Amino acid sequence: MDTDTSPGNAQRARPLPEFPALAQAAATLLRTPTALGELTADDALCVASYMWAVAYNTGATVMQAGESQHTGFMLLLLSGEVSVETQGTDASVISVIGAGSLIGEMGLIDGAPRSTNCLAVSRVEAGALTRGGLNKLIGEHPAVGARLMVAIAQRMAERLRAAGEQLQMVTQLLGDQQAEIARLKR
Amino acid sequence: MDTDTSPGNAQRARPLPEFPALAQAAATLLRTPTALGELTADDALCVASYMWAVAYNTGATVMQAGESQHTGFMLLLLSGEVSVETQGTDASVISVIGAGSLIGEMGLIDGAPRSTNCLAVSRVEAGALTRGGLNKLIGEHPAVGARLMVAIAQRMAERLRAAGEQLQMVTQLLGDQQAEIARLKR
Repeated sequence: MDTDTSPGNAQRARPLPEFPALAQAAATLLRTPTALGELTADDALCVASYMWAVAYNTGATVMQAGESQHTGFMLLLLSGEVSVETQGTDASVISVIGAGSLIGEMGLIDGAPRSTNCLAVSRVEAGALTRGGLNKLIGEHPAVGARLMVAIAQRMAERLRAAGEQLQMVTQLLGDQQAEIARLKR
Repeated sequence: MDTDTSPGNAQRARPLPEFPALAQAAATLLRTPTALGELTADDALCVASYMWAVAYNTGATVMQAGESQHTGFMLLLLSGEVSVETQGTDASVISVIGAGSLIGEMGLIDGAPRSTNCLAVSRVEAGALTRGGLNKLIGEHPAVGARLMVAIAQRMAERLRAAGEQLQMVTQLLGDQQAEIARLKR
């Protein structure tokens, strides 16, 4: 189990409850559909109280694909914008996300190396939940921890289903191309 | 929230605690790496006490891709074998799984339509955890519920990472084939 040290390579990191307005904003944003809409208002306030307030300067690397140290946290974006490079049918797809978006849930859960590159397009404020924080939350408020985990698992299930469909589509394309190559070689 | 009715289209379904030996086997199997190895022995016994004992005859459809009714449960296989058809770089990959394997976790979490076909290759005994059972577990033993959800989320994170790598590989192949087609057309 991690001790709850501050997360990653942020420019600064302080416990989120030190900034009551930010903590309130985090609780509200946690309940948006892009974050974890299934949580109650009280759940969200409780989760926010276990977060760190972190900030990244414009141009800073928020997460780096392959990064294996200090990956055990997720971020809830509070302000500013982050560009995310994800695998798609094109070599890479860049999406730009902002307040209310969540990144790094998989790292929170398993601490494995990051799978995407995330860059701060502007100055970014975020709430960070580390594995240490999650464990503390589960120990002190297990029902809230359980509902948070259900909400995170729902998000992951959604992404797994999308990945399955994408894989099916790309596999279909692969078959079509194989037939085309066979035809051209005839 | 679902009421905890018995799951799916099993040949029979009874509360698992009515069969103490099966419940004990379920608790042991829940802790194997193919199921949810991160749970403690007590956690696993507690989870097993919220399961149903279900059975499927040889040849029965355990889960059907696209099925949208009564999908809110997962199965822990206790005996017998199930063939699972998953999307892969080939149109479909059949794997045969047995005791200690888990299927349908995504349905447990979101109740969305099944994404794979699962067939009972032999007579199958399984422990089923429904959404109603999960909600009851979280209500009555929130810490165990939270740890169960962390373990399930870890499994999903693993599969998401594998899907991402597979997608990257297939996308690479797609690019190679495109180049080959361009060359052949020249």
